Amino acid sequence: WRIQQQEGVKQLARNFKFKNFIEALAFTNTVANLAEEEGHHPKLVLEWGSVEVVWWTHKIKGLHKNDFVMAAKTDKLYEG
Amino acid sequence: WRIQQQEGVKQLARNFKFKNFIEALAFTNTVANLAEEEGHHPKLVLEWGSVEVVWWTHKIKGLHKNDFVMAAKTDKLYEG
Repeated sequence: WRIQQQEGVKQLARNFKFKNFIEALAFTNTVANLAEEEGHHPKLVLEWGSVEVVWWTHKIKGLHKNDFVMAAKTDKLYEG
Repeated sequence: WRIQQQEGVKQLARNFKFKNFIEALAFTNTVANLAEEEGHHPKLVLEWGSVEVVWWTHKIKGLHKNDFVMAAKTDKLYEG
């Protein structure tokens, strides 16, 4: 994960690689379902063979402990 | 749709609005399934309440007639 600044807002971002579009789409859905369960929603950038996941907390316009927890959970989903 | 230039590559982009995350996710899947059927894959940026769809042709690093066809098909999917 890298910390990036987007229009003054700190965010946690990581790019995940896949071998085709369908696998990237499946991961998008897996992370989206986690997000909905937790009531905390990332930005998900789906392209052929990759998904970028970006976590931050809108309310504080930056990073909260929960974003790091969600990043760790995202890694677990990727590892399977 | 707007035409944007991303690292020298012309692209067609449009932002679609939704009333929550789940509806945005459903639209992401609908467009992704169309993409897989047609063998032409966009960039899809899913956030709470919105999906940005970006079409371009990797092989020519720019816009082909097919991208405009896919944009029109995306609109039809949005209109339902």
